[in-house]
Amino acid sequence: MARLGDEVSNKQVLLRDYVMGYPKESDMYLTTATVNLEVPQGSKAVLVKNLYLTCDPVMQFFMRQETDLTGYNRYTPRSPIFGYGVAKVLDSGHPEFKTGDLVWGTTGWEEYSLITETESLIKINHTDVPLSYYTGILGMPGMTAYAGFYEVAAPKKGEYVFISAASGAVGQIIGQFAKLTGCYVVGSAGSKEKVDLLKNKLGFDEAFNYKEEDDLNATLKRYFPEGIDVYFEHVGGKMLDAVLLNMRHHGRIAGCGMISQYNIDEPEGIKNLMHIVFKWIRMVGYTHRNYYHLYPKFLDIVLPYIREKKIVYVEDIVEGLESGPAALVGLFSGRNFGRQVVAVARE
Amino acid sequence: MARLGDEVSNKQVLLRDYVMGYPKESDMYLTTATVNLEVPQGSKAVLVKNLYLTCDPVMQFFMRQETDLTGYNRYTPRSPIFGYGVAKVLDSGHPEFKTGDLVWGTTGWEEYSLITETESLIKINHTDVPLSYYTGILGMPGMTAYAGFYEVAAPKKGEYVFISAASGAVGQIIGQFAKLTGCYVVGSAGSKEKVDLLKNKLGFDEAFNYKEEDDLNATLKRYFPEGIDVYFEHVGGKMLDAVLLNMRHHGRIAGCGMISQYNIDEPEGIKNLMHIVFKWIRMVGYTHRNYYHLYPKFLDIVLPYIREKKIVYVEDIVEGLESGPAALVGLFSGRNFGRQVVAVARE
Repeated sequence: MARLGDEVSNKQVLLRDYVMGYPKESDMYLTTATVNLEVPQGSKAVLVKNLYLTCDPVMQFFMRQETDLTGYNRYTPRSPIFGYGVAKVLDSGHPEFKTGDLVWGTTGWEEYSLITETESLIKINHTDVPLSYYTGILGMPGMTAYAGFYEVAAPKKGEYVFISAASGAVGQIIGQFAKLTGCYVVGSAGSKEKVDLLKNKLGFDEAFNYKEEDDLNATLKRYFPEGIDVYFEHVGGKMLDAVLLNMRHHGRIAGCGMISQYNIDEPEGIKNLMHIVFKWIRMVGYTHRNYYHLYPKFLDIVLPYIREKKIVYVEDIVEGLESGPAALVGLFSGRNFGRQVVAVARE
Repeated sequence: MARLGDEVSNKQVLLRDYVMGYPKESDMYLTTATVNLEVPQGSKAVLVKNLYLTCDPVMQFFMRQETDLTGYNRYTPRSPIFGYGVAKVLDSGHPEFKTGDLVWGTTGWEEYSLITETESLIKINHTDVPLSYYTGILGMPGMTAYAGFYEVAAPKKGEYVFISAASGAVGQIIGQFAKLTGCYVVGSAGSKEKVDLLKNKLGFDEAFNYKEEDDLNATLKRYFPEGIDVYFEHVGGKMLDAVLLNMRHHGRIAGCGMISQYNIDEPEGIKNLMHIVFKWIRMVGYTHRNYYHLYPKFLDIVLPYIREKKIVYVEDIVEGLESGPAALVGLFSGRNFGRQVVAVARE
């Protein structure tokens, strides 16, 4: 077993060069470096062993040279990529973390990371739930779902709620929050399997495969004959346009992503935006990053739901760092089934 | 002078037939009916002499057969059109109004109206300001500006504020609220005269004629090198798309109209809506109708501003009911200069 101060080998996933459009597997490559398992003297860094990493749609932007990335760091060619993960502290110069702590936050796609920017790290205090959940329902997507549902759109009992990309990391949690609140909940997804998941495992009232619908306006009218009160927006484009036609007065649209629009040269124009004015709709873009102060409140709500099995969470876990690039690339063709996780090590 | 119970002639502006697209003068016609200057026994109606009427962009929709008009009444062919106005009560069966009262609210385009739907009528208690102001700064546009500025977008001192259709009934008030709050304020309008008005009379920091700008994105970058915090949206289309590119993080967009989009077969697609998500923008459609309970609070703020000449208000008054149809139609070519008012009678 590796000990403090040992020089050990460190498998890493590196970015080959800046990417245009969707990343391909060949835009990343594996290499093996070495790492000293000790935080340099006087540093406030934290040295961790990475356990679980996740694949997020936003990571594609970090691979580009040109995108406007206010508040985010870009990847550097021939350096390890990074993202949210769960890790175990091996050594720490930081007063808040000590050897043996489990943490989640931004870490490298490698076996061991020396984390110098520790602002995103949060100590894990509850380990009676799967550790990988801190990459999902108890991590960034969970916080995003919580902020979008309880802070931004705040659907009330009996309201009509629609969620696009509903089987995704955020959508599946929002849908279950909505059901627990007593809303009528419909989700859209991109395959029969995902639709089955929504209806049979996650308890959505209805779900449909958008790829099989020719006229999304008619589809939404079928599922929402009285209109939509709250829409959780994760795709943009044609779906948003159809939703606008079907929104009710005083409706709310909460958006934390528009995945259909990320990789097209010219974004699709949204034609029905006038409905925002006519129907007094509130459309709000948000990010989990503005709600970190609510993390304890969020855990108070979500941990009991998980323990009492009132919320289920679906993960798609691949084994080994070397499976990471394919898993990340798979996000953009909808290959993943639930939260895409890469298990680097189990302990 | 006409007396209670007299049968008098009543000049009226009637809708000829339902209209498609922009109304033309010939879609309306004048006629002279008769009216009995007395409220029928047992009725709770109010009989008024109309003094000032106004032309609102929304009136075009009341002329159409097909538009979805939740909460609004449509005009009836061969009946008088209606809109906001100031009137004097000649007879009343309603406990809240008595002979001699001045009121503002929805009334007919005619010399005398028997108003049976009295919900919109508000008694005028302050007559030391021009009566016609109750069609504008002290009426619906004033309430709209107040709601948009203080309740919806709430710009703070030092923020960067952009207003489209800034010389319009609502825009000119919002701009002055913004200046009084200590914001940096830029407005767009459609003529050199309107731009001069904004800069020289209404105290905007800057203003431009959008018809003379080829690249609205570049224009906005010139006036807002640090971006826009709050946008008051009255036009939609290309302007909104350019604004989205220039919004700052946590920006707010308050919309009570999108006049550029009302009469085109296919609305222009808005391509930059992703910025709402990326920059955590709040875009809110609103109407004065949801804020009537704040009317006394609104008067408390605005009446002193008017009396102390801290706010000026520009009206474009035409004389006589017969000038009404041309004035209304002129709205859609931007012919009016400030709030378009039709003076039917002065007392």
